[in-house]
Amino acid sequence: MKPGKIIPAAITIFGAKGDLTKRKLIPALYNLYTDKHLPPLFTIYCVDFLAEDEAAFKQDLLAGINEFSRNGKADEKEWEGFAKNIHYLQGDFLKTETYTNLKDQLTAFEKKQKQSSTRVFYFAVAPRFIEIIAEGLYKHDLCNRDGLDRIVVEKPFGTDLDSAKKLNRFLGKRFAEKQIYRIDHYLGKEAVQNIMAFRFANYVFEPLWNKKYIDHIQISVAEEVGVGKRGGYYDGSGALRDMVQNHLLQLLCIVAMDSPKFYKSELIRDAKVKVLKDIRQYTPAQVLKNVIRGQYTAGNVHGTPRPPYRKEEHVLSTSNTETFVAARLFIDNERWKGVPFFLRTGKSMPVQSSVIVIQFKDSPHKIFKDDITPNRLIISIQPELEISLLFESKVPGLKMKLKPVEMDFTYQESYTETIPEAYEALLLDVLDGNPTLFMRADQVEAAWKVVMPIVDTWKKYPAKELHLYKAGTWGPTAATVLLKPYAKDWFRLSAREESIK
Amino acid sequence: MKPGKIIPAAITIFGAKGDLTKRKLIPALYNLYTDKHLPPLFTIYCVDFLAEDEAAFKQDLLAGINEFSRNGKADEKEWEGFAKNIHYLQGDFLKTETYTNLKDQLTAFEKKQKQSSTRVFYFAVAPRFIEIIAEGLYKHDLCNRDGLDRIVVEKPFGTDLDSAKKLNRFLGKRFAEKQIYRIDHYLGKEAVQNIMAFRFANYVFEPLWNKKYIDHIQISVAEEVGVGKRGGYYDGSGALRDMVQNHLLQLLCIVAMDSPKFYKSELIRDAKVKVLKDIRQYTPAQVLKNVIRGQYTAGNVHGTPRPPYRKEEHVLSTSNTETFVAARLFIDNERWKGVPFFLRTGKSMPVQSSVIVIQFKDSPHKIFKDDITPNRLIISIQPELEISLLFESKVPGLKMKLKPVEMDFTYQESYTETIPEAYEALLLDVLDGNPTLFMRADQVEAAWKVVMPIVDTWKKYPAKELHLYKAGTWGPTAATVLLKPYAKDWFRLSAREESIK
Repeated sequence: MKPGKIIPAAITIFGAKGDLTKRKLIPALYNLYTDKHLPPLFTIYCVDFLAEDEAAFKQDLLAGINEFSRNGKADEKEWEGFAKNIHYLQGDFLKTETYTNLKDQLTAFEKKQKQSSTRVFYFAVAPRFIEIIAEGLYKHDLCNRDGLDRIVVEKPFGTDLDSAKKLNRFLGKRFAEKQIYRIDHYLGKEAVQNIMAFRFANYVFEPLWNKKYIDHIQISVAEEVGVGKRGGYYDGSGALRDMVQNHLLQLLCIVAMDSPKFYKSELIRDAKVKVLKDIRQYTPAQVLKNVIRGQYTAGNVHGTPRPPYRKEEHVLSTSNTETFVAARLFIDNERWKGVPFFLRTGKSMPVQSSVIVIQFKDSPHKIFKDDITPNRLIISIQPELEISLLFESKVPGLKMKLKPVEMDFTYQESYTETIPEAYEALLLDVLDGNPTLFMRADQVEAAWKVVMPIVDTWKKYPAKELHLYKAGTWGPTAATVLLKPYAKDWFRLSAREESIK
Repeated sequence: MKPGKIIPAAITIFGAKGDLTKRKLIPALYNLYTDKHLPPLFTIYCVDFLAEDEAAFKQDLLAGINEFSRNGKADEKEWEGFAKNIHYLQGDFLKTETYTNLKDQLTAFEKKQKQSSTRVFYFAVAPRFIEIIAEGLYKHDLCNRDGLDRIVVEKPFGTDLDSAKKLNRFLGKRFAEKQIYRIDHYLGKEAVQNIMAFRFANYVFEPLWNKKYIDHIQISVAEEVGVGKRGGYYDGSGALRDMVQNHLLQLLCIVAMDSPKFYKSELIRDAKVKVLKDIRQYTPAQVLKNVIRGQYTAGNVHGTPRPPYRKEEHVLSTSNTETFVAARLFIDNERWKGVPFFLRTGKSMPVQSSVIVIQFKDSPHKIFKDDITPNRLIISIQPELEISLLFESKVPGLKMKLKPVEMDFTYQESYTETIPEAYEALLLDVLDGNPTLFMRADQVEAAWKVVMPIVDTWKKYPAKELHLYKAGTWGPTAATVLLKPYAKDWFRLSAREESIK
């Protein structure tokens, strides 16, 4: 049994009334509980500003599980067993009493159990509260045991390199680096974790995984949603900070990293940092040439009309914030020199879909007269979980005629196991003290370094080449032009048939 | 349009009353006709010894189509259009009249069409008639135009190297090499033809297709049938001559050959001959160590009792003829030095199945603690037509746990096109004058050279290490021991799930 299973766990969620708690954290903890991954003794303190009736609060969490858990409606008995460990603590993050009160509770819990517990403090709060809560925990000695106490910080981690550095310094003075779990939930996704297994537990693709055999790589994360109710935050942030600096660069790291010597968190994180550091730093002129930004206008997503971004709630009517980014990046190292990595993400796209495509080079030696489509490895992360290899095959018939087909691996056909939510995997890792899938301080900073030239250039030319695109489309044409001469278009996301074109 | 489509075709089948004509040749020609692959003007002369009523003969051919054609029952109108071109010619292969009569017919056909025709003479006869018929054709100038006239010779092509050489010399004096189509119907199989496309039109596997990345290769051709009514021929031949010398070595050639510079028949055949010449020649001691022979005893195939081989019709009760062969061969060239090729074929096996398995090497660099199954590429030729890649993948769940899974390509899911019979592909190639899939004289001789040390050693020690196996099993244990230390067992044929073990 892993230590996380036997040492009692005391989990504190700051921001207990927020969406994240209801949609993700509590459903994930509940599933960990029902699957017996939580230690037998645990307690969950839910801290927020508002006065709440605890029973009503729990009913609201239950409604969240019923609506958002991958397992659907909670079992009544299981819920009772789980819910009795949940406690609502009213508390202003700014006030001392919040922390002394929490301390009393934690001490009482541990006293009752007659042993120390793993303390996890989850910052499910707006960024402005991070330093305040960290200071509260620090001042009251709530999180001062290296091996047992951990904080979990959600993105955004800073708004630029300086603020990220400042935040890292601030936290670094109060906690050991190994106590700080900077979460990027993309890394917890089952299909993303599998990329490492796929690359490093198999020996057929790794010898080809370099500039000699790979033509280019496309990483697309398309969101069907618009900004919805997050306009206030999003308009000050944009797709570059909200998606590229974290999720897309992390996917790029996993695809491009060298093999770590062992599957050990520090070696893996070292290998990822190295990728980020090797990404070519762009001059402003290079930014304008290699990075496309877009913003959606009125349109239609799946038959539902969508307003233009500038008319979304809490968005400035003159906003130049990008809701779409496409970038061509280069990794200037031995493995990848000259291979373009095309990244794309946007809101109000036709479908919700994350896909990585490895486009191999054309054979240097063609024995057939047919037009050959070079091989393509397609890793679908969501909504489908699939890996497919596109290859040329003889069309059945009396002539040697070639056409691309696919070899497919789908989770649906290959596994009976259910697929855990990213937050389940990540929360269990926090409890187990396994930081592999979390961002180290230098990773976050290195990622900011990659995007800073873009941030700065766009700040300097706020309206220059902001491409408008209709909601419900795949973004501006400029993003397609960017691919030339490597591809005619982005490989479509979702719908496997469409990827053959 | 290819010349074969416009130049009239005059096809003569010697051995018109035989099984091959009824089961394979006529159904194949009929399908070529209905699919409009035959030239508009064609005639089929069916020659055999017995007196026949032509109408009754045609009815029997129709019954053959209805029973054996991949398209099932013939269409009445199509059959009429096809059948009016069929003519039965009674004739003793030994007599002059047979050839003069045939010549009159061919001349009349060509005169009527006012142009020359492509003449194809198909030798669907016992080996003892090959030279006789060839001499008849030669003497009567029936097949003397290099670019238009062809003979098709069925296996067995000789019974050893000397007889094959002798036959090649005999034919070579009477016809140009480009007129001689030595058929190995395995090469016409859709999935076999696709191996070339798969290897040479894709650039992901070719860089791995060598001793650095491949551990070993297994080629299995299992037959469910026993000797049936072929005991008379088979008992003098055995599995080595009947299957290994032709089909299995040809599969090995396609898997192991270097890429030809272009997809041109002579270049392809050159590359195949090179493989055969590079196969290590065994001493008698090496034969006994590297080649296993077996013979089936009484057993059960799919619930039907099967007699021991020695009690089959026309088989000697003391016969030492092998009905099973397993061999470990080495190709001593730059690409394959040290990589064992395991070949296996047998009668009275549990299923009818032909499969090639490329077993890749283990990764030199293991970052996971799990036991890793090295990658495996599985090319299924029959009854399924599939290509699968076995690879390690993370089992969905909260831990990094690996398990092999498969990426699959199946003809059934990928194509709407129907799959032609091997004989259709090959007959059309003969009409088109395309010898790519046929055996050149030097190919046949090189293949005999590979098996001669085995033939000779077994002749010297007729009963030594003849392993008995029960009908309905996968052959003697010695064939499994042969694989050590490369594999614990032969990868099962058919039933994809079973291949993961």
